[in-house]
Amino acid sequence: MPMPDIVCQIARGDLDAEIILRTETVVAFLDRRPLFKGHTLVCPVEHAPTVLELPADAAAPLLVAVQRVAEAMKTALGAEGTFVAVNNVVSQSVPHVHVHVVPRKTGDGLRGFFWPRQAYAEGERFAYAERLRAALAG
Amino acid sequence: MPMPDIVCQIARGDLDAEIILRTETVVAFLDRRPLFKGHTLVCPVEHAPTVLELPADAAAPLLVAVQRVAEAMKTALGAEGTFVAVNNVVSQSVPHVHVHVVPRKTGDGLRGFFWPRQAYAEGERFAYAERLRAALAG
Repeated sequence: MPMPDIVCQIARGDLDAEIILRTETVVAFLDRRPLFKGHTLVCPVEHAPTVLELPADAAAPLLVAVQRVAEAMKTALGAEGTFVAVNNVVSQSVPHVHVHVVPRKTGDGLRGFFWPRQAYAEGERFAYAERLRAALAG
Repeated sequence: MPMPDIVCQIARGDLDAEIILRTETVVAFLDRRPLFKGHTLVCPVEHAPTVLELPADAAAPLLVAVQRVAEAMKTALGAEGTFVAVNNVVSQSVPHVHVHVVPRKTGDGLRGFFWPRQAYAEGERFAYAERLRAALAG
């Protein structure tokens, strides 16, 4: 069964949400199960399944909305920083682009990018770069 | 001691990196300690400490570069999806905006947003939304 697009439903007003910001092109509302309280999803109103399908002219209004929400987290919640993230396809639970904006404080326990990192073997980093460069040139 | 801005150093050519994409406004190179091999940092060439200081006209070229890199990860590395993320201030190890683009496969073990989530108490979600709405209106 396909996952319901709750972002389109919220943007149309068919589903209830704590909307904190609404512009012509963007809707932002609280995630119901936050990483930290205040965790917000900033979404383009126009449907796009993932970041890869987002039209270039959607980028600036989306960035400005993310910036406004992140600033509000400092003022309203005392956030010292923010974690801004998008899952595309894998780990993506709603099939409509939603930018997670999560208020952060030093020592809040979110490991962020401190998951175990991998190491490249000798020459392997170059090999990966070559594969990506070839795909980008193609 | 302030952290060195390795992004500006790489963009200027003063520091070695596996650069996979370079445009007038964007430079993208492999993270040396990847979450998964091929993990790339996509960065605006013009210095901006965090997403909050990024000029709006930097958004579209940065989005297009992220999209190109994410597409290349599918072609070159067989990625099924991508994780796209930015740490601002907290957990940010280089003081220059860098967008992590991480290739994902189903069952790769990256928990993404499956860290323990919190629950709002009765009325608390509304209270958080009100604080953010007030800050956004101010």
